[in-house]
Amino acid sequence: MEYPSKVLAKAVDEISGLPGIGKKSALRLALHLLKQPESQAIALGDSLKKLVTDIKYCRECHNFSDSEVCDICANPKRTEELLCVVEDVRDVMAIENTGKFRGKYLVLGGKISPMEGIGPNKLNISSIEKKLETGIVKELIFALSATMEGDTTAYYIYKKFKSSTVRFSTIARGISVGDELEYADEISLGRSIQNRLPYSEGS
Amino acid sequence: MEYPSKVLAKAVDEISGLPGIGKKSALRLALHLLKQPESQAIALGDSLKKLVTDIKYCRECHNFSDSEVCDICANPKRTEELLCVVEDVRDVMAIENTGKFRGKYLVLGGKISPMEGIGPNKLNISSIEKKLETGIVKELIFALSATMEGDTTAYYIYKKFKSSTVRFSTIARGISVGDELEYADEISLGRSIQNRLPYSEGS
Ligand SMILES: [Zn+2]
Ligand SMILES: [Zn+2]
Repeated sequence: MEYPSKVLAKAVDEISGLPGIGKKSALRLALHLLKQPESQAIALGDSLKKLVTDIKYCRECHNFSDSEVCDICANPKRTEELLCVVEDVRDVMAIENTGKFRGKYLVLGGKISPMEGIGPNKLNISSIEKKLETGIVKELIFALSATMEGDTTAYYIYKKFKSSTVRFSTIARGISVGDELEYADEISLGRSIQNRLPYSEGS
Repeated sequence: MEYPSKVLAKAVDEISGLPGIGKKSALRLALHLLKQPESQAIALGDSLKKLVTDIKYCRECHNFSDSEVCDICANPKRTEELLCVVEDVRDVMAIENTGKFRGKYLVLGGKISPMEGIGPNKLNISSIEKKLETGIVKELIFALSATMEGDTTAYYIYKKFKSSTVRFSTIARGISVGDELEYADEISLGRSIQNRLPYSEGS
């Protein structure tokens, strides 16, 4: 497809680099932006750039943050005795949205997936170790997807730290087996984390 | 939904301002960008800004262009005797892609649609008038969508200029009635423009 303008071609090319957006949709989005006031595309462009240049990762939990330590980790009203292990930031947001959890998080940054070449070394597992070494954490809660990768990840972490004094639990599977955590509805997810179960090798 | 970071929240907000992209998809896209090298989001952001600040409209045909006059209008090998009237730039691209048209275009910038509040005054119809006044245009070809709005637009232009010496034609309806032009396949579209028919009030 020949584009009538190089700036249009470049924009379409960049937009269609996003997952799930083909050339046709990208062109449609570009033409949409051209019909709006200029300020909209400028604000969008600036915020995408700021997103990657200004975002920080909380040094405690690896959640995204605007400062060194995120609001959750910095909140003294939240107990450090409960550490909830999740895959990514969307899971933190989903659990926070239920309003049922008063502990802290540890964002793994993914799950073990041999298919996608993600081994334990790519995840923030050493940060769990550091947290456990302090002796403050009483309970480690797995809030991982009810998929094979989620189970494998929980099992790996459990095996690695089972000799520590921490208690392991896993959120109740109110969500169907095979479901991704982030798609669970708020009420089921809130109930799951309140009714969490002790984690054991067979669970 | 509470976002862990203001820059993330802002980016999600801006992305979800695009048509067809909800908050969940916007978050997914933002997280995708955060997993890629920083340069990708920066290039995307820059090209969106450049798109709206640097793009020009060809003063002859209203197509997008990088200069005052677009490559098609500036091409002396293309005859000015044939003027193809289209709704928007995607239609120019679709027809150019067939390689079957050697004339010039006139991009209306939409079609008459009382439902969407688009009247003839919002379209580049005065530019057709200017082209016809030169006396060079021999044939005005309607390449509009086979929809009611497309038909209304063609009829309006025909009525306005039927007293001029220009011949009216319309691309052959190889495409089914009700189809948008831009979705037509290349071969049908190429054939339609070659086998175009004289335009008359009943066509
Ligand atoms: Zn944190
Ligand atoms: Zn032009």
